[in-house]
Amino acid sequence: MAPRATVDVEFSFRVTRPGPAAISVAAAHADTEELTVSWHGESELVEFAHGTRAEVFALPKGEHRVTYHAERALTDPEPEPVTLADVAVFTRPSRYCPSDRVAGLVPPQAVKAKGDKAKVDAVVRHVHERLSYVVGASRATDDAIDTLLAGEGVCRDFAHVCVTLCRFLDIPARYVGVYAPGLSPMDFHAVFEAGVDGHWQVFDATRLAPRQTMLRISTGRDAADTSFLATLGSELDFLGSTVFATTDAALPVDDGTEAVILG
Amino acid sequence: MAPRATVDVEFSFRVTRPGPAAISVAAAHADTEELTVSWHGESELVEFAHGTRAEVFALPKGEHRVTYHAERALTDPEPEPVTLADVAVFTRPSRYCPSDRVAGLVPPQAVKAKGDKAKVDAVVRHVHERLSYVVGASRATDDAIDTLLAGEGVCRDFAHVCVTLCRFLDIPARYVGVYAPGLSPMDFHAVFEAGVDGHWQVFDATRLAPRQTMLRISTGRDAADTSFLATLGSELDFLGSTVFATTDAALPVDDGTEAVILG
Amino acid sequence: MAPRATVDVEFSFRVTRPGPAAISVAAAHADTEELTVSWHGESELVEFAHGTRAEVFALPKGEHRVTYHAERALTDPEPEPVTLADVAVFTRPSRYCPSDRVAGLVPPQAVKAKGDKAKVDAVVRHVHERLSYVVGASRATDDAIDTLLAGEGVCRDFAHVCVTLCRFLDIPARYVGVYAPGLSPMDFHAVFEAGVDGHWQVFDATRLAPRQTMLRISTGRDAADTSFLATLGSELDFLGSTVFATTDAALPVDDGTEAVILG
Amino acid sequence: MAPRATVDVEFSFRVTRPGPAAISVAAAHADTEELTVSWHGESELVEFAHGTRAEVFALPKGEHRVTYHAERALTDPEPEPVTLADVAVFTRPSRYCPSDRVAGLVPPQAVKAKGDKAKVDAVVRHVHERLSYVVGASRATDDAIDTLLAGEGVCRDFAHVCVTLCRFLDIPARYVGVYAPGLSPMDFHAVFEAGVDGHWQVFDATRLAPRQTMLRISTGRDAADTSFLATLGSELDFLGSTVFATTDAALPVDDGTEAVILG
Repeated sequence: MAPRATVDVEFSFRVTRPGPAAISVAAAHADTEELTVSWHGESELVEFAHGTRAEVFALPKGEHRVTYHAERALTDPEPEPVTLADVAVFTRPSRYCPSDRVAGLVPPQAVKAKGDKAKVDAVVRHVHERLSYVVGASRATDDAIDTLLAGEGVCRDFAHVCVTLCRFLDIPARYVGVYAPGLSPMDFHAVFEAGVDGHWQVFDATRLAPRQTMLRISTGRDAADTSFLATLGSELDFLGSTVFATTDAALPVDDGTEAVILG
Repeated sequence: MAPRATVDVEFSFRVTRPGPAAISVAAAHADTEELTVSWHGESELVEFAHGTRAEVFALPKGEHRVTYHAERALTDPEPEPVTLADVAVFTRPSRYCPSDRVAGLVPPQAVKAKGDKAKVDAVVRHVHERLSYVVGASRATDDAIDTLLAGEGVCRDFAHVCVTLCRFLDIPARYVGVYAPGLSPMDFHAVFEAGVDGHWQVFDATRLAPRQTMLRISTGRDAADTSFLATLGSELDFLGSTVFATTDAALPVDDGTEAVILG
Repeated sequence: MAPRATVDVEFSFRVTRPGPAAISVAAAHADTEELTVSWHGESELVEFAHGTRAEVFALPKGEHRVTYHAERALTDPEPEPVTLADVAVFTRPSRYCPSDRVAGLVPPQAVKAKGDKAKVDAVVRHVHERLSYVVGASRATDDAIDTLLAGEGVCRDFAHVCVTLCRFLDIPARYVGVYAPGLSPMDFHAVFEAGVDGHWQVFDATRLAPRQTMLRISTGRDAADTSFLATLGSELDFLGSTVFATTDAALPVDDGTEAVILG
Repeated sequence: MAPRATVDVEFSFRVTRPGPAAISVAAAHADTEELTVSWHGESELVEFAHGTRAEVFALPKGEHRVTYHAERALTDPEPEPVTLADVAVFTRPSRYCPSDRVAGLVPPQAVKAKGDKAKVDAVVRHVHERLSYVVGASRATDDAIDTLLAGEGVCRDFAHVCVTLCRFLDIPARYVGVYAPGLSPMDFHAVFEAGVDGHWQVFDATRLAPRQTMLRISTGRDAADTSFLATLGSELDFLGSTVFATTDAALPVDDGTEAVILG
């Protein structure tokens, strides 16, 4: 029987200017899930490209609290084919992945590697070796070039750099927000998918959690598309969050290079 | 009877590495249109968000030539509502519109203006006054910050700056590639749409052609989404293009501030 | 009789990698001064261009404490002529004042103003109005473009932006570290000098203290030249500082536009 | 007997706004030299730090022509010691060498190398291998980060990148404009000096000419300090230049790593 994953999220914030806000924490393919909010009022489900879902609330001023609980069986996911439209969108530069400006920083071993899987593996190895994982080092406005210059960052920054280098190599690459059982300290996590052999495979240059048991939350061009809490005209102060994601079986070992499909 | 617009495009290029290329020159709502290419082979129609269409060809090495002819009656277009998903996507920063980095460059008169239409008008006036239209000044990798620093650019750069400033002000804004009867010298043109009073209105800080007779080609976050010729792994040298777009009636006068819907 | 100024500085730091460090806190034209350090060992006086002095110590590992006391009569200073070499050096771009990249951000009223004094006044007024003084907003690596984009900064950032805009206008401009009686909260302060009517005049877009009673510490192209504590191969953690600068007479009123010479 | 070098330079330009311009083409330690200009009028010799000389002319509107001829015996130069003031100035970031922003781009082999000479050699080898020499690829406002991103540039850009990386490693490094017999095509050339074993040694990551027979023109922090023609308020259109630099003996072979002192 497939192992089961459980996700529990809680976060709170204070709204200082009322208006709509989009909450995007839903795990893909959840068997059961519940989103609760500490205020009364309508919400509207908004579906974005690539399956990302957001619940949009019109938030009044004051302090609010959100919880989310989900469970899901970790069955083997179906590979998702890379469409021609995917190739067009995900080889383009985007806000935090300016792939049209990094010609000089692509590792020669990735250029020389034969085949797209080998190229992506070379990118991941290079980024893993050259970037230091440092909490608090980066800013919300940092793009992949800022990260390459600084030589350090968090999961968001690692994913941005990898996506950027892959796109420069004409390999479609997209940014994915995930729940990552085994991550320590536990938090929202970010990885990336590359189009290899005609379908999307998941990669993680931080190597902080096994890819096999990750759960997809949101998919997009970069972090601009995948915020778990986005203000659409409202203003708020974030007050804190806790994230838990576990499985009921031992975590797999991830050697970092095995082909893994994200469900 | 509604005036009619006629579009004729021709361009050629030399493919140096074979592979797919996406041609996106189709005028929206054309009554009749014809795309011809100088080689034989299948193509695939790819439809993107917001109605942008591309024809993708697998191009062999060598020199190729593309022509496009379209005709269309310029009837009054239906206003397109701004959806919640539009708000989410088009208030985010994008590759050439880094709206999360321009707090210090937003004109005070746009911040102070009452209402979204007045704010967009203030942005357009500011950009029209402060930027010089200079052909050849900008590079393909320039974003709105590069343009603001340089103080000059072409239609693409004017549109990027306006989109960036509007998004900073929480007004949804998107980039639109158009045919623009009256433009001189004639070429592909770029303008932008802002979400005002619940629907999309078109603006043009270059003021080089009347907005009322423009024909939409492609719609997206910025120029990364709207190239008329995009390589998807192929490599090519561009050899030149001619663009004609005319109407069979006198061109309207555009005072620059009237609300205009783009069909 | 001329009023007298008194300066008292104290700061401490922990050296983590031994090596030379340059301490540059000496007030220009001090009548009496004393620098004490909490360790024993030789130091070497290094004199830089434009009168900046540094005392260089070979620092062992561990915690160290520096004090500086100076007194000076605030007599009317002699105007310093702007030499041809000054013009050459101080109209060039420098690390934090990239005057060759801000063509689009120079205020039109400064371009239009007649005469160099009027141009500098227009720059100062523009920067005073458009930048917000926000402690902790900027980073040590920020240049004037970063500050213009952010729209906020501290005295260092205000001075960098003014210097940058003046140089773009072909007006020689240099960065000056000063003691500023009346500043609140008291700290090291930074202002700038522009070459107007053939001699150096001091300006301050923060308008946080009267210019007439400021005491020059160091003079250079930008903050890279004027650090009060510079490591020359050593590494250290800064532990804190206190700065006092007062006069024995009432502080003058500075209307911001009067021509003032810095002693 | 020491071989002799001969230098001949000619360039012309059209002044569109009258004003002073600084011409800095004089070879250091020339035995004989002559500078001619095609207009009549006074000039003033300005001497900068580190021996750079400029002749400043007040130029009227119109077309002007400059020639320079020099001869010099290439005797073994005296090593120039690196002073404490040199260390302070030349480990700082400067306009085109932002050494405070490249932590992530310093090659690991340079960090690991033992001793300053080995570190500089590692920097030079890295830059020689990773950058492509491409004429016309870079812009006058490009700094070392722009060059690292582009992966290509000319001698100016190669020198800026090397200087930047050396300064990050706490090794004093400065930019030098030179005449370089053997360079092809012949032009003004730029190299860099690093402070190694207490004195300045010259390095050239382009490896386009032997360092042993180069003649120093100007020395500074970066290209901002070493222009052969700098406007100090005037404006001009450059019309072209020819540069010749030869020796009367066979050119030496430069293996790229030998310690060389620049005269």
